[in-house]
Amino acid sequence: MIELRSDTFTLPTPAMMRAMNEARLGDDVYGEDPTVLELEERAAELLGKQAGLLLPSGTMANLVSIMTHAPRGSKMLVGAESDIYIYEAAGATVCAGVMYEPVPNQDDGRLLLSDLRRGFPDDPDDEQFALPSLICLENTQNRCGGVVLPQTYLKEVWEFAHEHEVAVHLDGARVFNAATALRLPVSEIAQYADSVQFCLSKGLGAPIGSMVVGTAEFITEARRARKMLGGGMRQAGLIAAAGLVALDDLHRLQDDHANALRLAEGLAGIDGIDVDPGAVQTNIVMFRVSDPRFTWQTFVEAAGQHGLALAELGHGRLRAVTHNGVTEADIDRALSIVRRVLADGREH
Amino acid sequence: MIELRSDTFTLPTPAMMRAMNEARLGDDVYGEDPTVLELEERAAELLGKQAGLLLPSGTMANLVSIMTHAPRGSKMLVGAESDIYIYEAAGATVCAGVMYEPVPNQDDGRLLLSDLRRGFPDDPDDEQFALPSLICLENTQNRCGGVVLPQTYLKEVWEFAHEHEVAVHLDGARVFNAATALRLPVSEIAQYADSVQFCLSKGLGAPIGSMVVGTAEFITEARRARKMLGGGMRQAGLIAAAGLVALDDLHRLQDDHANALRLAEGLAGIDGIDVDPGAVQTNIVMFRVSDPRFTWQTFVEAAGQHGLALAELGHGRLRAVTHNGVTEADIDRALSIVRRVLADGREH
Amino acid sequence: MIELRSDTFTLPTPAMMRAMNEARLGDDVYGEDPTVLELEERAAELLGKQAGLLLPSGTMANLVSIMTHAPRGSKMLVGAESDIYIYEAAGATVCAGVMYEPVPNQDDGRLLLSDLRRGFPDDPDDEQFALPSLICLENTQNRCGGVVLPQTYLKEVWEFAHEHEVAVHLDGARVFNAATALRLPVSEIAQYADSVQFCLSKGLGAPIGSMVVGTAEFITEARRARKMLGGGMRQAGLIAAAGLVALDDLHRLQDDHANALRLAEGLAGIDGIDVDPGAVQTNIVMFRVSDPRFTWQTFVEAAGQHGLALAELGHGRLRAVTHNGVTEADIDRALSIVRRVLADGREH
Amino acid sequence: MIELRSDTFTLPTPAMMRAMNEARLGDDVYGEDPTVLELEERAAELLGKQAGLLLPSGTMANLVSIMTHAPRGSKMLVGAESDIYIYEAAGATVCAGVMYEPVPNQDDGRLLLSDLRRGFPDDPDDEQFALPSLICLENTQNRCGGVVLPQTYLKEVWEFAHEHEVAVHLDGARVFNAATALRLPVSEIAQYADSVQFCLSKGLGAPIGSMVVGTAEFITEARRARKMLGGGMRQAGLIAAAGLVALDDLHRLQDDHANALRLAEGLAGIDGIDVDPGAVQTNIVMFRVSDPRFTWQTFVEAAGQHGLALAELGHGRLRAVTHNGVTEADIDRALSIVRRVLADGREH
Repeated sequence: MIELRSDTFTLPTPAMMRAMNEARLGDDVYGEDPTVLELEERAAELLGKQAGLLLPSGTMANLVSIMTHAPRGSKMLVGAESDIYIYEAAGATVCAGVMYEPVPNQDDGRLLLSDLRRGFPDDPDDEQFALPSLICLENTQNRCGGVVLPQTYLKEVWEFAHEHEVAVHLDGARVFNAATALRLPVSEIAQYADSVQFCLSKGLGAPIGSMVVGTAEFITEARRARKMLGGGMRQAGLIAAAGLVALDDLHRLQDDHANALRLAEGLAGIDGIDVDPGAVQTNIVMFRVSDPRFTWQTFVEAAGQHGLALAELGHGRLRAVTHNGVTEADIDRALSIVRRVLADGREH
Repeated sequence: MIELRSDTFTLPTPAMMRAMNEARLGDDVYGEDPTVLELEERAAELLGKQAGLLLPSGTMANLVSIMTHAPRGSKMLVGAESDIYIYEAAGATVCAGVMYEPVPNQDDGRLLLSDLRRGFPDDPDDEQFALPSLICLENTQNRCGGVVLPQTYLKEVWEFAHEHEVAVHLDGARVFNAATALRLPVSEIAQYADSVQFCLSKGLGAPIGSMVVGTAEFITEARRARKMLGGGMRQAGLIAAAGLVALDDLHRLQDDHANALRLAEGLAGIDGIDVDPGAVQTNIVMFRVSDPRFTWQTFVEAAGQHGLALAELGHGRLRAVTHNGVTEADIDRALSIVRRVLADGREH
Repeated sequence: MIELRSDTFTLPTPAMMRAMNEARLGDDVYGEDPTVLELEERAAELLGKQAGLLLPSGTMANLVSIMTHAPRGSKMLVGAESDIYIYEAAGATVCAGVMYEPVPNQDDGRLLLSDLRRGFPDDPDDEQFALPSLICLENTQNRCGGVVLPQTYLKEVWEFAHEHEVAVHLDGARVFNAATALRLPVSEIAQYADSVQFCLSKGLGAPIGSMVVGTAEFITEARRARKMLGGGMRQAGLIAAAGLVALDDLHRLQDDHANALRLAEGLAGIDGIDVDPGAVQTNIVMFRVSDPRFTWQTFVEAAGQHGLALAELGHGRLRAVTHNGVTEADIDRALSIVRRVLADGREH
Repeated sequence: MIELRSDTFTLPTPAMMRAMNEARLGDDVYGEDPTVLELEERAAELLGKQAGLLLPSGTMANLVSIMTHAPRGSKMLVGAESDIYIYEAAGATVCAGVMYEPVPNQDDGRLLLSDLRRGFPDDPDDEQFALPSLICLENTQNRCGGVVLPQTYLKEVWEFAHEHEVAVHLDGARVFNAATALRLPVSEIAQYADSVQFCLSKGLGAPIGSMVVGTAEFITEARRARKMLGGGMRQAGLIAAAGLVALDDLHRLQDDHANALRLAEGLAGIDGIDVDPGAVQTNIVMFRVSDPRFTWQTFVEAAGQHGLALAELGHGRLRAVTHNGVTEADIDRALSIVRRVLADGREH
């Protein structure tokens, strides 16, 4: 099976397994796991922040960040097409008492400053308005097709936020893909956010875990939130060991991007598929089945029967994601399968 | 001062004061205030529901309704231009753990069924999605200019909601204005909602209080929520007495509507004002100052100096609301003031 | 019916009704009700604080105070026999995300400093502990029999709290009874708390409402919380007018205290009643029926049939509360009824 | 260093590492990790329940259970000395809106039925009371010294709970220690609870993770809560693989219990130590330093300098916990260290 549903399906590499086998461990709930401490320091350094924190998932990494930035009863401005708004089960509402205010994502992933500005009431003393405390950006932006937010834009939002005295949190689940696409150190991106979360378990290929980085004070508070949510893990150095290997291996994201482009270009040559290779910036390819004999459901099912796993990602679009478990040859086989499905193409 | 900022500025009528003076009172927290009990029964009957509940405000009336309908972690679909979403300080998030999902309001106040449908995930078993539990409508719709939702539309939403197994709550702060405009008993509107809140203190002219009506079981639960929020009041029969008088006097809403239309038609004849009298359906007139010498702020200030109180209501539009404290003669004076302000019209 | 169940049953006096009829009103949600503003200022002054806020109930007055003092996830130390812990429906948990940590009340109402100290973890950096942010005292203490907390004790708690960097909130639902008993200005009591709530609707005899007082900044925040909970009321000057009259009439609490003592002494002379008149400090008398032919339920029922309303208040104790609606003659009649019930005393 | 602070310090065994290396993995957020599925099924079967769920910690296992059983605004009755009440950072308050009502633990760990009964208001229709929805027990009870709750008692609570229509959740972080001590299958204990959580990472010796078991419906709901809190982990089969090994190896808990008893008996023979070996039922030994030259702090520090790690567990008591990483020889060395510290015993 060629697994293109998500980059969360990666299996640990031999190097990761070796690192796990050799990791020095301790009880991280007591702050005594040396491998976790090493990873937290490493992540902070890489992103240019003071401190880092390991969490069991990106969902929790975002949630503890929101809990730490945003007081009860405040609101956060968040993309209407963002993962935080759509895929995190209302956690900020339930656990933080923080209101989501969705702001439209442009096709290129941006939230317009004019739209953000609308979230700030003219009269902040008027008690009927919840007040903004946080802006969340997502980079790369998943549902907009893995697009990279421009650095100039990040800077503008950063300045806007500080002028309005709210924090910026970056959902950087795939921020290393953004850095790779921009050919910039990831810290250049992270400089425009008060906190950044990134996943060890997506493009980086580690089996479990996400990191949050920020100021030392922020991380101390986030650690409290993590404990409360139950994200404190005992010998978490096992997870951290794989994460450390992943951080040594960032250059391979280029291959994922090349593979995504190869896929998009291949798909563009197939009748019955609607795709814009020019829109592919990182490891995500969005496309539609325009062949009227198929719905997305029947197409996904047929592809699956031929050994290609794809997923829908809102509004009937299909998403293919490249990752550590997908080779150039896999891409070529995937294209063959798509061709064959469409050739077979009786109505399903 | 001609007070057109809101219909919440009404002062109690002599009949209301008389009723308050003569009211039989008790401790309503013990359920022993006979005047409150009478009002609750009366409200329920009028709206065609089993039971009613008196609350100190419309905000709380909406909040207890949401708390009663919607479990923690669910989401409610609510108009992006609704009072519940904009003016109620994130209460549903904080006190109920319920996520707001704003749905665009059409110019006529409606939330399109296709937009509501988008709030329901294709796969409700997928744990990453918060699930809808409630649809909130607002009738009349304040920020759309006091428009009345069509009965056929209410029926469609009602059927949609029940098909999708979610409840419908009607923010009917001004539902009697809707009933007046439609020349229908208010119960005809209320039949398409599981719960309805209406304000005694807006068009109805009472000094304090709102009601929620619904099934007996719903009201029993809502009463618990009211207690928790601190909305239980002792000798609340004082408030209820004025409310009962207000419910005897519903026909006078016709005058408010006539006055609003008179105002809109008058404004339409004034250069420098942009208004559509055809859009006025109830007691609210939305207009803009098109005279480039004014911003809305300078215009409101100048009008105030001449004895006319107006308010902005989002996006720079001005709102004038007629009510029990505004006569036909007041409308004519208000128009004179507008003319004079524009005539004086040096840049402010 | 002689109403001794609670001092919440008082009906407004003629002077209060007069004041309500003559009150200057406005829309308090816009901050424009002059009578409310006068009451808020008056309350603040009387308690020696910067600012005051009118709320529909004591429950909400406590809740907004807790929401304002205590951040999400912190805990408050509160008497295990306090009204906040027992009778306020978990509001602080639901609306504030604040954990109740009940601390035993001594018979004299105090929470021992040593017990309070136990609420502070040795290692506040240990993330597994919720951290205290607030101590709530209750004065007079209802379930301990309306006892008055000693001034020296209040001062000790105040110093303890400030040393530990937590706030003190006083549930002073009956703080004027405490001041009356101590023959001190109420500000002498209030000085040892960051915020105080008191009820207009208990001993003070007003029909509706409670006040919170504190710093100007605190009240600004509390006002936000009030709005969110739905405690903003429109022409609330009606309620405030009665409250202002109540504050002019504080001396009459002495009569309530004298009546309570008269009741207790009378009861002490009746076989089958167990009461300690020495324990009566204010307007509350706690007693038990020791006559084995009765349970508290059958006794309360029999007294009710003879025109005397009593209530149970935990652990099978009966509570009688004197107030504005109870005269010395009523007390004597109440004693007659008790005697008669016990004389009749067949098993019910 | 002989590590007796907690049984959470265990390092994975070679068998566990081998299992991790060989584990079949998948993305458990998609429900596709075969090793996790195997563990969840195995855990359910072992405890005699329909379904199981893997979580990153015992804290989250308890929290999702509470969120699933208890509606917003209800209260749970929980031991005043329980880990849920003391060590879980108010999570149930913040994330579930559920009030903690602490009930005294007897020395043997039990919550008396009479005390539980007090948590149920006489009049459940009285809106001022939060209503109980859940009773939490802890078995073995940590802060009472690892004591085992009697089976007859569990049955009584179970019957009481069902008569009162509330659920029972068992915090069985160390329930396998209880089963070992009772020489019963763990399902005999679990039969008296609607849900049970147990830790893979304490006595069972796995590096990370806890399980919840209950009905299929309960686990489906708990899975939603887990997602919201961010407890969904990707290739969690790594963790599960170690957990499966741990469940094969339950008999070794007998050694921990024998070692604990050996330690207690040894300590009993040392002047300056106050311990009751008869109180040791499982793998926890509670003792005090009675030698007046030491505080618990100075004693712990001195022991640490000699290579023995101990912890305080409330009220100045010291706790020693045996586990997979502690041999009989370690116990003897630990005793030597204690003797030596006391012999050295100058005031620290």
